[in-house]
Amino acid sequence: MALNSLLQHYCLRVESALDSRLQHRSIEPRLQEAMRYALFNGGKRIRPGLVYLCNQLLDGQLNAADAPACAMEAVHSYSLVHDDLPAMDDDDLRRGKPTCHIAFDEACAILAGDALQCSAFEWLAQPQAELQPQLQLRMLAVLARAAGDQGMVAGQAFDLAHVGQSLTLQQLQQMHRHKTGALLTASVELGALSAGVDSGERYEALRQFGDAIGLAFQVQDDILDIEGDTATLGKPQGSDLAQNKPTFPALLGMTGAREKLQQLHSQAIEALALFGSEADPLRALADYIVKRDH
Amino acid sequence: MALNSLLQHYCLRVESALDSRLQHRSIEPRLQEAMRYALFNGGKRIRPGLVYLCNQLLDGQLNAADAPACAMEAVHSYSLVHDDLPAMDDDDLRRGKPTCHIAFDEACAILAGDALQCSAFEWLAQPQAELQPQLQLRMLAVLARAAGDQGMVAGQAFDLAHVGQSLTLQQLQQMHRHKTGALLTASVELGALSAGVDSGERYEALRQFGDAIGLAFQVQDDILDIEGDTATLGKPQGSDLAQNKPTFPALLGMTGAREKLQQLHSQAIEALALFGSEADPLRALADYIVKRDH
Repeated sequence: MALNSLLQHYCLRVESALDSRLQHRSIEPRLQEAMRYALFNGGKRIRPGLVYLCNQLLDGQLNAADAPACAMEAVHSYSLVHDDLPAMDDDDLRRGKPTCHIAFDEACAILAGDALQCSAFEWLAQPQAELQPQLQLRMLAVLARAAGDQGMVAGQAFDLAHVGQSLTLQQLQQMHRHKTGALLTASVELGALSAGVDSGERYEALRQFGDAIGLAFQVQDDILDIEGDTATLGKPQGSDLAQNKPTFPALLGMTGAREKLQQLHSQAIEALALFGSEADPLRALADYIVKRDH
Repeated sequence: MALNSLLQHYCLRVESALDSRLQHRSIEPRLQEAMRYALFNGGKRIRPGLVYLCNQLLDGQLNAADAPACAMEAVHSYSLVHDDLPAMDDDDLRRGKPTCHIAFDEACAILAGDALQCSAFEWLAQPQAELQPQLQLRMLAVLARAAGDQGMVAGQAFDLAHVGQSLTLQQLQQMHRHKTGALLTASVELGALSAGVDSGERYEALRQFGDAIGLAFQVQDDILDIEGDTATLGKPQGSDLAQNKPTFPALLGMTGAREKLQQLHSQAIEALALFGSEADPLRALADYIVKRDH
């Protein structure tokens, strides 16, 4: 199957898995509405896609990948809800729709984010016939480390603390490796773990692949912010520049940023060298990240 | 040992365990400062105390209780940081000190809360020589369920959605069972699980004990808000009344609220009937909750 069809397929799969995990009744239905609003917002489901693709690459059972796919998306969604808050990036729109605190209210958005993060860990901790408990624990540890004060949250805090300041290339890379890269790499790792692979050269190769595409994703994001158009991006084009945010093009120039992107793409492809054609969907994903226009 | 000395001992133990878990270096030191500020704020460490007491009651190894004790306190601390935010309860002081978003800033407080919640799950997922992986997974599931949209967060959302509205006694109880009770009961459960006890009449008895003291804690809180003095409470006396919050005294009258408190105390003591004198510290804790003045 071509990558697009595969991702579409996995997108539907994770959305159905998420939907079934949110069927219980809460004493506060509005909280759950806000959680659903944040989760079902037309996201591309790249992280769940990575979980499923790596699970399949390593001959895993697809059922074992549902919980980690849902967990990755829940953490990603919660981070967007909190990042959009007035005290953080103060964004009113995301993918052309009102952000969670605009559609609901700020308190509800904070709590929906809190509950989504919690749900991610809850889903991963639930008994799984297909998985050894040790592998489940490892997934929980990998996700927690990627999402917390040594991963995503630290990256966001570093970003906010350095708005308007100049960063070195090393700092910029470190920020993005934490802010977005950690979760993308964790998606790859959870996919491998869901197939029972928890170490060895294939595991390390996939980690390196995740690391390279994670950073490539951000470099392309920075390039698109300058070259994309507002309608395609779903956010005002040039908004990074307007907010004086440090970016790869600002540090390296547009040519340098493009070179960096190509270099990361090559690293991603090289990391997959020990796999045969069964890794073609991942190779196509690396191509997509470099060539995407939104 | 008397309860006070025991709790003091466990308080020092969990603070040392928390300290050692926060030694790693982050790319954003201020985030970790905020996490430490939120964690080391003079709290009474009731939840870790419950974990250790139940672990010891069931002849567990104390080492196995450190991670769950730290996790319970991290979730409790994160919830206080987020509850104090301007968009939520908007409190400037907690235990007589500036709240996290006052001492740092709002974005930092949101992120420190997010990272603390994440840390709780990270610590519980780390390899533990003393514990079966199945028991660790069970702890993670119990904590996640108690903390999320079927527990604490739902209670807080329900509370915010009903400010200034009248509640029935049943609604008020349900709110507190979610908002504070769920985490206290989870503390008891994690203590039992850390001793290898995951079901049976002792497990159920401790759950019921946790449920009763959780609600008793809140009834006494409401009574203290009316009768306590501001210096002892660390918050303005009468603040619930001023904010028109639904409380047990408001619904039942002061005499009715006191009767309710006694009734819950009796339930807590009765739940422990199958234990001998080894449960005396828990009985003393039930007494303390009913008699405390802050």
